[in-house]
Amino acid sequence: MILTVTLNTALDITYRIRSLRPHASHRVTEVTERPGGKGLNVARVLAALGHEVTVTGFTGGGTGRAVQDQLTAVPRLVDALVPVAGPTRRTIAVVDEQTGDTTQLNEPGPTVTPAEWSAFQEAYEELVPSMSAVALCGSLPPGVPVGAYAGLIRSARAAGVPVLLDTSGEPLRRGVAARPDIVKPNADELAELTGSHEPSRATQDARRRGAHAVVASLGPEGLLAVTPEGRWRATPSARVHGNPTGAGDSAVAGLLSGLVERLPWPDRLARAVALSAATVVAPVAGEFERETYEEVLGRVAVTGSTNAA
Amino acid sequence: MILTVTLNTALDITYRIRSLRPHASHRVTEVTERPGGKGLNVARVLAALGHEVTVTGFTGGGTGRAVQDQLTAVPRLVDALVPVAGPTRRTIAVVDEQTGDTTQLNEPGPTVTPAEWSAFQEAYEELVPSMSAVALCGSLPPGVPVGAYAGLIRSARAAGVPVLLDTSGEPLRRGVAARPDIVKPNADELAELTGSHEPSRATQDARRRGAHAVVASLGPEGLLAVTPEGRWRATPSARVHGNPTGAGDSAVAGLLSGLVERLPWPDRLARAVALSAATVVAPVAGEFERETYEEVLGRVAVTGSTNAA
Repeated sequence: MILTVTLNTALDITYRIRSLRPHASHRVTEVTERPGGKGLNVARVLAALGHEVTVTGFTGGGTGRAVQDQLTAVPRLVDALVPVAGPTRRTIAVVDEQTGDTTQLNEPGPTVTPAEWSAFQEAYEELVPSMSAVALCGSLPPGVPVGAYAGLIRSARAAGVPVLLDTSGEPLRRGVAARPDIVKPNADELAELTGSHEPSRATQDARRRGAHAVVASLGPEGLLAVTPEGRWRATPSARVHGNPTGAGDSAVAGLLSGLVERLPWPDRLARAVALSAATVVAPVAGEFERETYEEVLGRVAVTGSTNAA
Repeated sequence: MILTVTLNTALDITYRIRSLRPHASHRVTEVTERPGGKGLNVARVLAALGHEVTVTGFTGGGTGRAVQDQLTAVPRLVDALVPVAGPTRRTIAVVDEQTGDTTQLNEPGPTVTPAEWSAFQEAYEELVPSMSAVALCGSLPPGVPVGAYAGLIRSARAAGVPVLLDTSGEPLRRGVAARPDIVKPNADELAELTGSHEPSRATQDARRRGAHAVVASLGPEGLLAVTPEGRWRATPSARVHGNPTGAGDSAVAGLLSGLVERLPWPDRLARAVALSAATVVAPVAGEFERETYEEVLGRVAVTGSTNAA
């Protein structure tokens, strides 16, 4: 069982409209809703890959109920979200049918009280020991201390459970110092953490700051991994076109599933790259196309070397 | 007890953002939610004026629950909404803090099934006989027949209960032919119904089409009423500035409350004009400012004459 943590869960709503004109009135032609927040995306991909997965984080209000209703329909997924008084935030993606472009409106989400944060930490401590891996994903909602991930990483490591961190800014900086097993920053997050825009140097620097393994996602250029076992570069054979939303979350699911299946690093990276590509081409943001996944998987180029024992 | 009917209820959401830029990502700084749909607005104003009011129409899903939760907090208001399988629509008003302008996104709402429409009609038939007046407000949701209001008007008239219609387009045209006691079109709706942009002529024509009394709302110029008892013009003493959203609904509440209190037409019109003005100046769209209401009420100019008996 894998645990994914999404402290800033969301109800992701997509509106299709003919053309967005500021200060006009628009008829929405199509409404779709799905559970959102990076950890929930990771969990759905893990479940689709056949893994048992538990999700935790916060849920509240009618929007939280809508998220939880949809999660019950996902096979192999256990809902362990912790209730809060405020409603789960909505994110609204307004897709312009004429241009295909998206305008995004993101609610701030409810402020988590100290009592609610304590209740979450207790629930997390109880869940972690029976897990094969933990993923901590996304931003922190208002009210959660900026060092939150550092504490959750220390708990997982104390329980002997490998932990992956995928966040940005100060929560990433603090989290890295708590020595997570894997961090998966993108190029911007890595540059913000280390001050270097040179991926190879920045990845090394992130390891020096505490992360055991750093897997940097470099968009269409694939992944760069620097780990205790060796360093590798994994690149898709061809560039894919589509919507990159959720591609990073699919990469996290690839890395985690490979970890618990005890695959060697090159196989984990190939899986993560193929899942990312299959997410970019999927018509629904955040889903992945299984056919593309299997097709790309066989053709990811992984270069690099295992460290001498 | 007054009954207001809102077939196309909504959860009205207002987002404040710094500045709307198409195809960019925006952080919403403030979220407010309130029950929406014209009949619910009318009911809230009636309740604030001290009247007992029952609301009916459709409710569904988490958004419907949110609407109903908020209605329970309104004193003197009874919730008799009829459940449907689909979720109540959301409307999103995106307020640009830099310009004060609003961009509106309106969901279409759930399609009402024939069985759901029948269930509503039964509930309505049971409610109507104990009411002192009925208001039929707003657009029709998908699935409800375009002649819906005509049927509801005939039922109310058969029960001897006065009925006001506030809608537009084909539902207005069909509804007027069913001889409602009052219709309250705005200038555009009146022109669409009659083909005439001259309010006095168009109002007369709307009466010939079946409405017993026609009260045309002419925006800042107030109201023009042509009724079996006489014809009047009611105008506010000074122009007010603000958000006209809900001003028409407040006018309907003024007309209805005056009807059940058996006020003479000039007093009903003065109340409707004052409530409209007090709604325009209120900081929250659809609410009214009691102080402004009382101040304007004493200074509405009503001109016109009662018909010879």
